[in-house]
Amino acid sequence: MDKLLEEIKSIVGSAGILLEEDVSGRSDTWPPMGGCQAQAIIRPANTREVSAVLKLCHAAGQGVVTHGGLTGLVRGAKAGKDDIVLSLERMKGMEPVDTVNRTITVDAGVPLQKVHETAEEADLLFPLDLGARGSCTIGGNIATNAGGNSVIRYGMVRDQLLGVEAVLADGTIISSLNGVIKNNTGYDLKQLFIGSEGTLGIVTRAVLRLRPLPRSCNTALVAIENFEQLGRFLSDMDSALGGTLSAFEVMWNDFYSLIVGDGSKHGQPLGSEHGFYVLLESTGGHEESDKTRFEGALEEAFESELIVDAVIAQSKQQREDLWAIRDDIEGLTQLLMPPIVFDISLGIPKMDDYVDEVRQQLIEQWPDSHMVVFGHLGDGNIHLALTIGSHEPDEVHAVEAIVYEALGRRQGVISAEHGIGLDKREYLKHSRSPDEIALMKTLKQALDPKNILNPGKIFAQQKDSPS
Amino acid sequence: MDKLLEEIKSIVGSAGILLEEDVSGRSDTWPPMGGCQAQAIIRPANTREVSAVLKLCHAAGQGVVTHGGLTGLVRGAKAGKDDIVLSLERMKGMEPVDTVNRTITVDAGVPLQKVHETAEEADLLFPLDLGARGSCTIGGNIATNAGGNSVIRYGMVRDQLLGVEAVLADGTIISSLNGVIKNNTGYDLKQLFIGSEGTLGIVTRAVLRLRPLPRSCNTALVAIENFEQLGRFLSDMDSALGGTLSAFEVMWNDFYSLIVGDGSKHGQPLGSEHGFYVLLESTGGHEESDKTRFEGALEEAFESELIVDAVIAQSKQQREDLWAIRDDIEGLTQLLMPPIVFDISLGIPKMDDYVDEVRQQLIEQWPDSHMVVFGHLGDGNIHLALTIGSHEPDEVHAVEAIVYEALGRRQGVISAEHGIGLDKREYLKHSRSPDEIALMKTLKQALDPKNILNPGKIFAQQKDSPS
Repeated sequence: MDKLLEEIKSIVGSAGILLEEDVSGRSDTWPPMGGCQAQAIIRPANTREVSAVLKLCHAAGQGVVTHGGLTGLVRGAKAGKDDIVLSLERMKGMEPVDTVNRTITVDAGVPLQKVHETAEEADLLFPLDLGARGSCTIGGNIATNAGGNSVIRYGMVRDQLLGVEAVLADGTIISSLNGVIKNNTGYDLKQLFIGSEGTLGIVTRAVLRLRPLPRSCNTALVAIENFEQLGRFLSDMDSALGGTLSAFEVMWNDFYSLIVGDGSKHGQPLGSEHGFYVLLESTGGHEESDKTRFEGALEEAFESELIVDAVIAQSKQQREDLWAIRDDIEGLTQLLMPPIVFDISLGIPKMDDYVDEVRQQLIEQWPDSHMVVFGHLGDGNIHLALTIGSHEPDEVHAVEAIVYEALGRRQGVISAEHGIGLDKREYLKHSRSPDEIALMKTLKQALDPKNILNPGKIFAQQKDSPS
Repeated sequence: MDKLLEEIKSIVGSAGILLEEDVSGRSDTWPPMGGCQAQAIIRPANTREVSAVLKLCHAAGQGVVTHGGLTGLVRGAKAGKDDIVLSLERMKGMEPVDTVNRTITVDAGVPLQKVHETAEEADLLFPLDLGARGSCTIGGNIATNAGGNSVIRYGMVRDQLLGVEAVLADGTIISSLNGVIKNNTGYDLKQLFIGSEGTLGIVTRAVLRLRPLPRSCNTALVAIENFEQLGRFLSDMDSALGGTLSAFEVMWNDFYSLIVGDGSKHGQPLGSEHGFYVLLESTGGHEESDKTRFEGALEEAFESELIVDAVIAQSKQQREDLWAIRDDIEGLTQLLMPPIVFDISLGIPKMDDYVDEVRQQLIEQWPDSHMVVFGHLGDGNIHLALTIGSHEPDEVHAVEAIVYEALGRRQGVISAEHGIGLDKREYLKHSRSPDEIALMKTLKQALDPKNILNPGKIFAQQKDSPS
């Protein structure tokens, strides 16, 4: 073991350092495949140890890749053979819920689901929710500004975070844990650590904002004929449901008819001949009046001929069955083998035309290609899932070029919620200008002049490619 | 006119530059008092001109103070005699409302109220609202991360801003105007310009998020006996009103009884013997069901003995009369002459004890002092308004020391929404640690190495006081 690792061991103890097969047996990508190449995995027990380890790494110019729950999809946690990994898996402390302020203070290694459970015991909600909830950690959620299922109502992580403690590249601890909603005392430093994928600092602790636990939930699946009506339906529902609209998930006909088609395990709650399907949900505080309002809003939409058919869930089971159609990503990818999936945002008025253009370009190049579209339309976020019958890197690359180039021309966003990591680095230029990327590099240089924090992620950094 | 001003004039034209009495006749503080000391006031017509002017100023090391509507309360727009002022008063362009995306793109010089009016014509709401709406500008709102009346429901400016165009100290234009809600493509650069009081860049244009215009509004004034019940009432209402709670304004007994007391122009809708008064408001999308829910929520609160008395507004006039009590800051300051007013945040559980301590310390030092308390309790933001019968700088300073020191011990925030400017610079240390302030200086140094942007605001900068 070299001198630096010896020094680190003296800080974290032998339980705090993994070497050799304990490293190579672990993964640093999703899905897990083993083969982590790092020199060592360091597992500090607290913020003080994170700080002391970073101080040593900073002095030595040692690259550090931070690991949370390892459920990211863009290889943001990939470590090279010269790097060390800093895993926050031992930092799982939680303070009791503050029920008056409605906050909870947790260590970065706490899994998202644990926060859900703890909040619910206090009759409160932590609204961030995503499929990886059992594994992903609060620290990783912050580092990637995670989104998920209820952004339309509650926003992304950036909107749920009141305070943060983070360690800078040189080991300085920045503690901004006061946790009030309104705070205009100089620069809001926590913004630096949200969504910067571990390249500007390592989040060790957070004050999270909790919300009232909803007392009512109304869900419907609705059929709509054309895109223009879809946009108006979203506006009308947001207005009629006044602040309680909590999901507006859209499935293009291609998605819906594929998932509920021949041999499907799902029923067919609505016929598959319509242009678009919306899974609509509203959560509120008063069962009876919320139901009245929800049904009234759908009636209005029928009367104004925005929607042509609808089914309202009458039980918890029926609600789950409707959601199962939207959430059947496993079924979807089996039908689109091998799958290529995209996570993009763009202005709603540009979506229809964008999807048409991409579809046409794909068909021209791969006549047997098949693409379906779905997503969180209310947030401007859609997913494209497609197959061209091949997973050859060159062909996947050609697909990516089509998807991102057409997006860039429409001021779209190449990553709505997954981040950039290594996988989308080459395409960043479609969403951000050279001046924006130069400013990102200025920030990186100011906060991490030796480029030790998650090196090479998001963009190639100064020493690799001078700006 | 010196060489730099000649060069600037060649960019902005003679309509774009004011000199001598056209400068000294203007103000740079609130309330307006004239006497601006700057060398010149530059009035660029567009972002390109802002960029060209800054490029010249950067080369010359010329200090630049940006002016919006000049309604700030902390001398954040004060210019010294060596500075030039850059006023965005000619940049008032607005694009049409995008009714599908529900956004509007505006120049920084557009007054807030103009955005309100334009959104309302499209049946939409721009929820940021504050007393200075007629004068303050969107650029100034962004630079100060303005808060105001509906933060509990919609958040501060940071939550209303989807995209921004800003000019850096060296004239680089950073244009991030795509205006989608979900965007995880590298660092979220707009955060740098929000709330940094013009010290990191000059905002020239913004994409604002609009919301549905509420269709219903329910308002009540409620009496509560003790602080513990007040906290529970907030939780319960937020829960029962499920996402539609839009105001929770609290008046301590001292405030209410002073404002509705002898000789008051207000009626006395509730007796003045109770501990606390809450002005509660809920806005929604469905008149009938919203009313049912609102009245039901208040009934629940009566039954659980959280509230002891209540009056529900039955008309627009009654609603305005209730708000007039809370908003009568002019009447308040006339009763507390000369007034000293504070804008602070702290955790709700710590508020009661904090107010008691401050009150006691004031009484000990100034037995005739009189303090009243009110504010946006749901946001953790309260205002203290007090008089000690004097406005001597030394005495005001002694009051500030008491208020901020007791706050600092409780991890409170010395500026909830007004910012730091020059007036609160000396007290920043009570809310931010030396390491936080050092990191702010690192950012300032990276983005504005010559310290030309709003020099001296928020903190004394590198060349004045090495960190």
